[in-house]
Amino acid sequence: MCLDISRYHIIMKKRIKNIFTLVGINNALSVLRSKKLTITKLEILKDGRASKENELMKILNDIQIDKIVYDKKIFHSKYANTKSQGIAITFTGNITEQNIPDFSNRKNFCLLVLDQIEDPQNFGQIIRTVECAGIDGVIFPKHHSAPITQSVLQVSQGAFVNIPIYEITNLRNEFKRFKEQGFWIIGLENSIDAKPWYENDYTGLTIIVLGSEGKGIREKVLESCDFKSTIPMQGITNSLNVSAAVSAIAFERLRQININP
Amino acid sequence: MCLDISRYHIIMKKRIKNIFTLVGINNALSVLRSKKLTITKLEILKDGRASKENELMKILNDIQIDKIVYDKKIFHSKYANTKSQGIAITFTGNITEQNIPDFSNRKNFCLLVLDQIEDPQNFGQIIRTVECAGIDGVIFPKHHSAPITQSVLQVSQGAFVNIPIYEITNLRNEFKRFKEQGFWIIGLENSIDAKPWYENDYTGLTIIVLGSEGKGIREKVLESCDFKSTIPMQGITNSLNVSAAVSAIAFERLRQININP
Repeated sequence: MCLDISRYHIIMKKRIKNIFTLVGINNALSVLRSKKLTITKLEILKDGRASKENELMKILNDIQIDKIVYDKKIFHSKYANTKSQGIAITFTGNITEQNIPDFSNRKNFCLLVLDQIEDPQNFGQIIRTVECAGIDGVIFPKHHSAPITQSVLQVSQGAFVNIPIYEITNLRNEFKRFKEQGFWIIGLENSIDAKPWYENDYTGLTIIVLGSEGKGIREKVLESCDFKSTIPMQGITNSLNVSAAVSAIAFERLRQININP
Repeated sequence: MCLDISRYHIIMKKRIKNIFTLVGINNALSVLRSKKLTITKLEILKDGRASKENELMKILNDIQIDKIVYDKKIFHSKYANTKSQGIAITFTGNITEQNIPDFSNRKNFCLLVLDQIEDPQNFGQIIRTVECAGIDGVIFPKHHSAPITQSVLQVSQGAFVNIPIYEITNLRNEFKRFKEQGFWIIGLENSIDAKPWYENDYTGLTIIVLGSEGKGIREKVLESCDFKSTIPMQGITNSLNVSAAVSAIAFERLRQININP
């Protein structure tokens, strides 16, 4: 029998790339409830906060996963300086999807496009916020964005399991498809033709596009936008964090949907 | 002459406590523009990003501060793993104020009260967001909140200079004074009698109260609130970051003011 070593190496590399370890109760609960992910390790601090969390312990008993219970010394040597809450979960699986379905028959459906977001902290925080705000999916271009890393997932506090994240290669092609489906595309960009963020309509089929704090939205992507929104700065600092901007616009959309159901 | 050593020590301790070193262009610009702070050291990376920032260099020339210019090796040995942008500024001064003035003659005036916010990252992010959203001040209780640390200031991206931050000892006493001045107090708390966040009126004289993610607002503080707002979670994760919640509510207030000037 001939073992194809080169192929084996490729598979191993891919596997290693897709293995994540997250800490914290929210992250652990989300991963445990997910049907898409395969858990490979579960580490718990003896008598730590997670071990006293009834809901978590119930799920762990029901699904029969081997738990490694560490004492304080060992657990902290592995997870010091993290907000572990006494639990770390290691898993593998596809976090992102490559194909975006047809959404033309949906109502009040909204996807968020992140163009050139490079900070994992912001990326993760945005996933967390929009999942809470009822946005239906996050799209990011493979070549113009931070990749989905452990940090991104960690900051998202488990939200990454509960909202589809689409990693695509060509944003403009997707925009064409969205327009054929009846979507309106709104870019958040501080330009002359932009309206205050609350004057645009985010009900119906909507794509909201955000750029990075420094670079904004790429020119070609901006050209595809039907409308532009701006959040005018009121203070002197003039530097709203991109995840705070997402929160403002995502909850404005939710307000509009709630008052016009 | 007799030198009172014990007194000298107390002064030194106090001074050391109030010395902060922040990195980044936004922080440096804010501190340089502030009239309240005394700059004790300014460190710049030779040919780094900050050294090419025209506005920053103009201010530095105008105010005649001695700059210490380091080469890459030394600067990075001091400020590795920080988003320094090639500048670090050390200063001393009072960041917070203890006495809240009378605001009864102001129009559309809003203060944000943070009760039990313990995470410096959230604290700093909130200061940054509300300064951009035109909130007029931040109040936090001395004994039920994280103190103002270097981390808080760093995350605020210089906003701490441009918005008054009041550190007070008794929140309920202040609330009494606010009510006498005509303020309405609105607490963000997920309770039965809370309305969706956009249904409460934040125009006029308004206090918005926020609690921590875990503990919420203290019972006694909540009792002083005239109205309650809630941001109902739409997703499964059910965990909106407190600074994202601040963004949603602060920009909803700005929307209300803009449409009813």
